[in-house]
Amino acid sequence: MSKEIRRYTASALEQFLRSAFVALEVPDADATLVAGLMVRADLQGYDTHGSFRLRQYVNRLRDGGTNPRAEVRVALEKGSTAVVDGDNGLGHLAMRFATQLAIAKAQDHGIGWVGVRNGNHAGPAALYVTMAVEEDMIGLYGAVGSANHVPPFGGADLLLGTNPIAIAVPAGESPPFVLDMATTVAAVGKIKTLAQRGEPMPEGWMVGRDGKPLTDPARREEGLLLPIGGAKGYGLAMALGLLAGTLNGAAFGSDVVDFTKDTTSATNTGQFIAALSLSAFGDVTAFKASADAVFAEMRGATPLPDHDPVRIPGDRRAALYNDRRANGIPLHPNLVKTLEEIAGELQVPKLG
Amino acid sequence: MSKEIRRYTASALEQFLRSAFVALEVPDADATLVAGLMVRADLQGYDTHGSFRLRQYVNRLRDGGTNPRAEVRVALEKGSTAVVDGDNGLGHLAMRFATQLAIAKAQDHGIGWVGVRNGNHAGPAALYVTMAVEEDMIGLYGAVGSANHVPPFGGADLLLGTNPIAIAVPAGESPPFVLDMATTVAAVGKIKTLAQRGEPMPEGWMVGRDGKPLTDPARREEGLLLPIGGAKGYGLAMALGLLAGTLNGAAFGSDVVDFTKDTTSATNTGQFIAALSLSAFGDVTAFKASADAVFAEMRGATPLPDHDPVRIPGDRRAALYNDRRANGIPLHPNLVKTLEEIAGELQVPKLG
Repeated sequence: MSKEIRRYTASALEQFLRSAFVALEVPDADATLVAGLMVRADLQGYDTHGSFRLRQYVNRLRDGGTNPRAEVRVALEKGSTAVVDGDNGLGHLAMRFATQLAIAKAQDHGIGWVGVRNGNHAGPAALYVTMAVEEDMIGLYGAVGSANHVPPFGGADLLLGTNPIAIAVPAGESPPFVLDMATTVAAVGKIKTLAQRGEPMPEGWMVGRDGKPLTDPARREEGLLLPIGGAKGYGLAMALGLLAGTLNGAAFGSDVVDFTKDTTSATNTGQFIAALSLSAFGDVTAFKASADAVFAEMRGATPLPDHDPVRIPGDRRAALYNDRRANGIPLHPNLVKTLEEIAGELQVPKLG
Repeated sequence: MSKEIRRYTASALEQFLRSAFVALEVPDADATLVAGLMVRADLQGYDTHGSFRLRQYVNRLRDGGTNPRAEVRVALEKGSTAVVDGDNGLGHLAMRFATQLAIAKAQDHGIGWVGVRNGNHAGPAALYVTMAVEEDMIGLYGAVGSANHVPPFGGADLLLGTNPIAIAVPAGESPPFVLDMATTVAAVGKIKTLAQRGEPMPEGWMVGRDGKPLTDPARREEGLLLPIGGAKGYGLAMALGLLAGTLNGAAFGSDVVDFTKDTTSATNTGQFIAALSLSAFGDVTAFKASADAVFAEMRGATPLPDHDPVRIPGDRRAALYNDRRANGIPLHPNLVKTLEEIAGELQVPKLG
């Protein structure tokens, strides 16, 4: 931690990411779209889901697991629903397309619900649900996680991912409500960070196959990640898997491919995005004022002893975005080193 | 616990409930609908959300808190969305109406999403999401809880309910997946049961206003009910409150009326129900076979030491339904006593 955290401008980072994708045969327009979304994730503070993921995306493009020249298309469509086929391209392309389609359907019918099959890891869900917010809509997202780390409740076999859910809701004066959460107690990234630091995990994050608490993060491969609320989180992860995977003809259960360890197989990742138009439910300005009032009430609650004031999901994101937009994106030296390695491998200019 | 648990036929219980509502000026057709749904909840094992709730419904009808002659109507409508106004009647009437409307919209457009305002407690969410399943649709439900027992994360003021979420998914040979859960670690009913028995609560269910664990269920009124997964469950409860309450012009936050303690004020309870038609996402039979396969995989997982085999949410409901349909509904002697008291108050024949 003694190394200095250097900041980079969004445009420099975006250009670097774009050049990496172009070097891997991704068409220029697609490379630009994905790089832009990855940098937006970094700007909003989703540090484990932005440029941090370039290593994985590069390995899969390099080894044939991801299709660089994907043609995203609508596979099935009804008035308010659709299934988008991502053609095994970079996941951001299918999810961006699906979100735009869901928004268009919501404009016409009040709601649009669009599933994705043959997708891939698409960065943080917050990217997509907030696209709905920008159109005065509520965004709702679910996904099958990109590797199985979680057993069904009471079981010892890894059949479920951290299957995330995200919901974003517009407000007036307040930043929007943006919830983007795994259905497990801890995220895999956090456990890897503790392992790097040699610190133990709290009890309740993982158990071993003996059902006993596992607190050594170096032994995480032997362990089972636990869902929030026990059987409840298991139920939520199942429901998200059925909605994002099975319903769309995407992988769920033992056919999920670990997208980090396996860089050559198509993952058939499934996601869904729904957009609900505020105007279909009444006056948009009145809704935003009500949301502001609810958020103010929560923020104004008496804090528990030794607690900070209550926050609304999305508050931190808004604050980080303002800071990073103005002052640049801080990248950890380990990530900078990885990006330099990638520049060498792909023979593209280093991040400046 | 020494008293015998007697079983009652569904038809006897339904007739009794109907007569209680009719005695309180509820029109015959509405009384029949609500009684039928309450008995269906009992048949499916939702023992704290079926006839157990008659006491609360009776008190509110008697004292003017609930409108016996409600006229449920569509307040707002777009192609795939609507807001239903429950006219402050028994909550089942608005939710049943909303579910039928969502199903009709899903038949036309792939999805229907219908919110409720001016509703009331409507029994278990499972009733409504399984109506969608009967039409080969996925059902999704959320509600603002009928009293505030939960603080925002890190706060000490009660501004949130146990805001439940429910999701039901059709299968082929298997019973459907039916998840119906509060977003808190424990339900209020469970805590009341422990208090009756004089047993302590496990740590993690509640904290006091000092932030320390509260395990004496008799002191529950001083305590704060905890959401699952800490900040995550808080985020989910907020999202459900915004979708089920604020979006529909229904109560959320400090304007939520405690529907047990206050029997005279309209609650303006908010709920939503969405139906997604399987046929809009591909072949229905193929989907059901895939769901069966996923469920079989989960059920076949190696159990943790000393654990029962893995279950799918909805398995217990299906087993109880078969038993109770054949052998009658077991009612706890305390509930039978309450129903006898109600019969006396309303001068209707006792449950036979």
